[in-house]
Amino acid sequence: MTRRRPCSARKQQKQVALVCPGCPGPSKPRRKKMPLGERQGDKSDSRYCGVETDFDDDMPGVLTFNLQGGFDFVVAPLIDPSYRPSLGKADGNGTCVLPFAASDLVISPSQWSSHVVGRISSWIDLDSDNEELRMDSEIALKQEIAWASHLSLQACLLPPPRGVSCGNYARCVNQILQGLTNMQLWLRLPLEKSDVLDDSMDGVSDSVNGGHVIDSWEWWNSFRLLCEHHNQLSIALDILSSLPSVNSLGRWFGEPVRAAIIHTDSFLTNARGYPCLSRRHQNLMTGFFNHSVQIVISGKGVHNVCPSANPIDSYNKGMPRHPLRSYLDYVGFLYQRMDPLSEQERIELGYRDFLQSPLQPLMDNLEAQTYETFEKDRVKYSQYQRAISKALLERVSDEMASTITTVLMVVGAGRGPLVRASLQAAEETNRRLKVYAVEKNPNAVVTLHSLLKLEGWENIVSIVSSDMRCWNAPEKADILVSELLGSFGDNELSPECLDGAQRFLKEDGISIPSSYTSFIQPVTTSKLYNDVKAHKDLAHFETAYVVKLHSIARLAPPQPVFTFVHPNHSAEKNNQRYKKMCFEIPNDTGSVTVHGFAGYFDATLYEDVHLGIEPSTATPNMFSWFSIFFPLRTPIYVTAGSPIEVHFWRCTGATKVWYEWCVASPTVSPIHNTNGRSYWVGL
Amino acid sequence: MTRRRPCSARKQQKQVALVCPGCPGPSKPRRKKMPLGERQGDKSDSRYCGVETDFDDDMPGVLTFNLQGGFDFVVAPLIDPSYRPSLGKADGNGTCVLPFAASDLVISPSQWSSHVVGRISSWIDLDSDNEELRMDSEIALKQEIAWASHLSLQACLLPPPRGVSCGNYARCVNQILQGLTNMQLWLRLPLEKSDVLDDSMDGVSDSVNGGHVIDSWEWWNSFRLLCEHHNQLSIALDILSSLPSVNSLGRWFGEPVRAAIIHTDSFLTNARGYPCLSRRHQNLMTGFFNHSVQIVISGKGVHNVCPSANPIDSYNKGMPRHPLRSYLDYVGFLYQRMDPLSEQERIELGYRDFLQSPLQPLMDNLEAQTYETFEKDRVKYSQYQRAISKALLERVSDEMASTITTVLMVVGAGRGPLVRASLQAAEETNRRLKVYAVEKNPNAVVTLHSLLKLEGWENIVSIVSSDMRCWNAPEKADILVSELLGSFGDNELSPECLDGAQRFLKEDGISIPSSYTSFIQPVTTSKLYNDVKAHKDLAHFETAYVVKLHSIARLAPPQPVFTFVHPNHSAEKNNQRYKKMCFEIPNDTGSVTVHGFAGYFDATLYEDVHLGIEPSTATPNMFSWFSIFFPLRTPIYVTAGSPIEVHFWRCTGATKVWYEWCVASPTVSPIHNTNGRSYWVGL
Repeated sequence: MTRRRPCSARKQQKQVALVCPGCPGPSKPRRKKMPLGERQGDKSDSRYCGVETDFDDDMPGVLTFNLQGGFDFVVAPLIDPSYRPSLGKADGNGTCVLPFAASDLVISPSQWSSHVVGRISSWIDLDSDNEELRMDSEIALKQEIAWASHLSLQACLLPPPRGVSCGNYARCVNQILQGLTNMQLWLRLPLEKSDVLDDSMDGVSDSVNGGHVIDSWEWWNSFRLLCEHHNQLSIALDILSSLPSVNSLGRWFGEPVRAAIIHTDSFLTNARGYPCLSRRHQNLMTGFFNHSVQIVISGKGVHNVCPSANPIDSYNKGMPRHPLRSYLDYVGFLYQRMDPLSEQERIELGYRDFLQSPLQPLMDNLEAQTYETFEKDRVKYSQYQRAISKALLERVSDEMASTITTVLMVVGAGRGPLVRASLQAAEETNRRLKVYAVEKNPNAVVTLHSLLKLEGWENIVSIVSSDMRCWNAPEKADILVSELLGSFGDNELSPECLDGAQRFLKEDGISIPSSYTSFIQPVTTSKLYNDVKAHKDLAHFETAYVVKLHSIARLAPPQPVFTFVHPNHSAEKNNQRYKKMCFEIPNDTGSVTVHGFAGYFDATLYEDVHLGIEPSTATPNMFSWFSIFFPLRTPIYVTAGSPIEVHFWRCTGATKVWYEWCVASPTVSPIHNTNGRSYWVGL
Repeated sequence: MTRRRPCSARKQQKQVALVCPGCPGPSKPRRKKMPLGERQGDKSDSRYCGVETDFDDDMPGVLTFNLQGGFDFVVAPLIDPSYRPSLGKADGNGTCVLPFAASDLVISPSQWSSHVVGRISSWIDLDSDNEELRMDSEIALKQEIAWASHLSLQACLLPPPRGVSCGNYARCVNQILQGLTNMQLWLRLPLEKSDVLDDSMDGVSDSVNGGHVIDSWEWWNSFRLLCEHHNQLSIALDILSSLPSVNSLGRWFGEPVRAAIIHTDSFLTNARGYPCLSRRHQNLMTGFFNHSVQIVISGKGVHNVCPSANPIDSYNKGMPRHPLRSYLDYVGFLYQRMDPLSEQERIELGYRDFLQSPLQPLMDNLEAQTYETFEKDRVKYSQYQRAISKALLERVSDEMASTITTVLMVVGAGRGPLVRASLQAAEETNRRLKVYAVEKNPNAVVTLHSLLKLEGWENIVSIVSSDMRCWNAPEKADILVSELLGSFGDNELSPECLDGAQRFLKEDGISIPSSYTSFIQPVTTSKLYNDVKAHKDLAHFETAYVVKLHSIARLAPPQPVFTFVHPNHSAEKNNQRYKKMCFEIPNDTGSVTVHGFAGYFDATLYEDVHLGIEPSTATPNMFSWFSIFFPLRTPIYVTAGSPIEVHFWRCTGATKVWYEWCVASPTVSPIHNTNGRSYWVGL
């Protein structure tokens, strides 16, 4: 049994407007041939690096200078910052003439689109008490974005909100978002979380916010809630010289951060006078590279690097060296220094944060391709082999090894990988074995027969083409081996199947696995929330998905949910479960949004041999299972230090099994998936 | 102009499963002919009074005894409280036999349905730590409700939750609710809010909750959120001898309370030894009567009323007097003591909590019926007449009264009520008047012409069939009179119309009204929320409704929103508005749910003559306007003492005007009605 579809079966999902200003479409010529570096398999936006510039009437010149200086794109104002709509000169027809940097005749739309992110005027203040300024701001914001949209820019950078209250700013942006077709709006925010109000602040926040910031994430959260998680609203973080705690930084990896703007005065100076970053900043940059966040360098060159040595750029003979080149080089160095992606990582790259429906192997028959993919998981089968060996040694002493034949039944044999593992375990331990391979999928049974012939196992292995729940076994088994686990342990109905198979297990027989437990943890995952929401129905919010989680913030350690033990000797078998859990988010994380729960399992195959994907104990290099994701219909806002109370149920009916879940604290959610109305597993 | 449709135009809305156990359908014979009393026009459930009884195998006897004793219905257990599913006797076929009180052969379904509310076993504890008890509870709850449903009961009384955590109880009830067709489930809750943990408690809560209750409303709120505001889940309140604060009681009138169970030991004893209630209890009972809450009397007769005097019921010769008869008589006394409904109240009864779309008098022409209804509002026109008189006296001194003719224009004259008020004002003040009656609805113009002829006003009044925004007036007016206000003041676009009409007002001319202001206040209104939700779309949650608010809790005093002043002499007329408000809920109210905002207006017609529906200053006996209601897509939970920050916008476009609104604190809502996508008023 398997827990996800193999790579080739993946349905390609269209990525919605992933902004990549440095990356033109395949047919467009690229000006720059040199991103931060080549990393095998990495095709993410984080290869590109931008630079923030000031307003300049000569935009073509600005563009040429920066692109030739080594940058992939510029973040530039489109309109003279001294312009105000209420003071605008009217031309002969009474319409306003905007002092634009350049039009689409001077720079082609494809150039604009590939290499320019528009920076919206920073004087704009939509929450000012001054009504005239507010009105001017609204007009200017709408004009500038309309102009950027006309130029086909891929993104605009919105100035940071000026205070705690950003209601009118959000209302205006939200109105604009309804009419934007492709462009992203990056809300600029200082990466800042101060515990005390009078904390020293620097850079952007000092001038803009007057030192009243407590946690810029709170602004983001209010803003995006007002704009209802609009998927064209994303984040550009200003990286300052001091960084908040690691836990609080982690939150941003579940949010749609598109760019990190790093200021030249946040760089340190190394022994040779070159700019470099603190260890903590370096780790953060690696995090950004790994999460498709593009770096933008901003500010004046404050590191006076070898002024006499090499003022001429070696890449562009005759051109003066870009004043920020040494910062770019350092960012490139950090990028190239990263470990290359492993083969497994490269294969899984396409699955990152891609929602898949869990398999229903009990109701549906798996395809050959699916079997093939999962049979390749060597680690998994070697764990099974170890467990079976241990069980054989336990049941049959060395003295009896040549006289006793252990009866082992593989229930759900598929195309035979557990049969092979069992026979290898018998060989390894020198025990005599008789194997029954029980399989309900008639197609897999055909393969099993071929395998027996091919391997010469006909005398040891009997194939049974039957559902284990109704097979009348001719004898009882010593060992029952199965691989019926899903990403959430019991979610492919292993408990129900093994309860059925237990009829033909001896009273003292062994089940491999002997127990399994599911786990969940609360996560922030803006991307998955929006993907679920895009379906615009209730059912998708009440479905669990198999997914390679990547752009998420794991907010608290996983906790066990449901445990099943086999064989189950209780008189009345009851596979309903109810678990109440309470998660504590570390205090220095700050407030968070919970979009749902990541789920895992851990299984004890036999004694100390386990197998699982629970992050703290996950079996290394095993690829058969991705995580599971239980979404919440409405994301839950959790203030710093508040516990999260979560209830999970496993419900069973005559024809199906399903989960229900809810949050009871700090706020109360509806109970999800009542009566399995949206998502269930058929018996 | 008008603000709601007249009565006869009302579309009848089907009431969803309003439980009325004492009230069989029209064709069914009623056992009891005597509700609490007759109150003209009052057809609500609160006329009926029930009694709580214990389990008795002889249900027909119990029913006869209580109905003949004067009660309308009984609240009775359906199943022997000693029964446990896990101990259930199996019959020959292995199915369980439930010790039912009586079957549908002993009492007919119509009897069951008219006179019995099923009381679910109180041993049920779905949140127990004991798994067996939990499992037993789930089975029993489902069996009992299935049986009640089979008997066509209109309601079942669920036992109160046992502690703060009621997740599993709610999950189970929620599953049941999905399959219930008509029956209501009344969640029993003590009416209790203690500020201190060790507060003395009595009655139900003492035994059930071990003294840990802080505010039973919190249980209700969690329960109904988990069950997603299901409209078949409602409340039965246990009234104890001590009552929480008036503010905290007020919350319940916005919640679906169906029954109030009053215990005999909550009664006091009057001088003659009869049961009576404290003044605060009496007020609460009146509140229940006014909100269709049925009273149920529970407990043993503790007032030993005249044991020798009259043990025989005078209504039922020969029958022993019901031991709770004196309590019933007292409740009947309270009911009959209430003030009768006024004619206006009786007319408006059918409109209570009934959502209507506001009129669009600018885009649509009103019907004759609508004009007729609103012309009947004498109070309104007498206020106008007073204002016009004042303006005439102000403009023309007594000396000049016979020489100066004041030019008065009624803009939006309809069928002429303001023309009449103007002429009466002129007569009253002895001023000479020339009137222009401007009306865009050609149908109303026909009526106007007849009116002039009928009244002989042809020489004084000129009729202009035109939209005031484009009429070229032959002269300028001294006074502009209009009635363009909606329930929310500017919501029928009075500002835009009067800006247009101002062209033909003299520089020093007067507008009546001279200003108007809208108001909002946060409210709890479970009924309206569910009615909006029933449409299952976004648009209805982003629409403002005209509604006669009744079953609501007003949580904080109204605050002003937008003000418009006429004439508007500013250079650039701008009718956009933005207002941020902060509501403080009285601390002793406790936590609340905000379902939306009730809106009102107040207008200054001229000087000290005002007109409005803002509750604290409302013009008495005026019926032209109901309130307006702005819903919230997700109700907001507000903990005791937290302020509510609300933002309202009035936005204007080329062809329409609309409102946007949001809550920014304590939690952040999405911005409602972005770009007027769901609700707007056409220009």
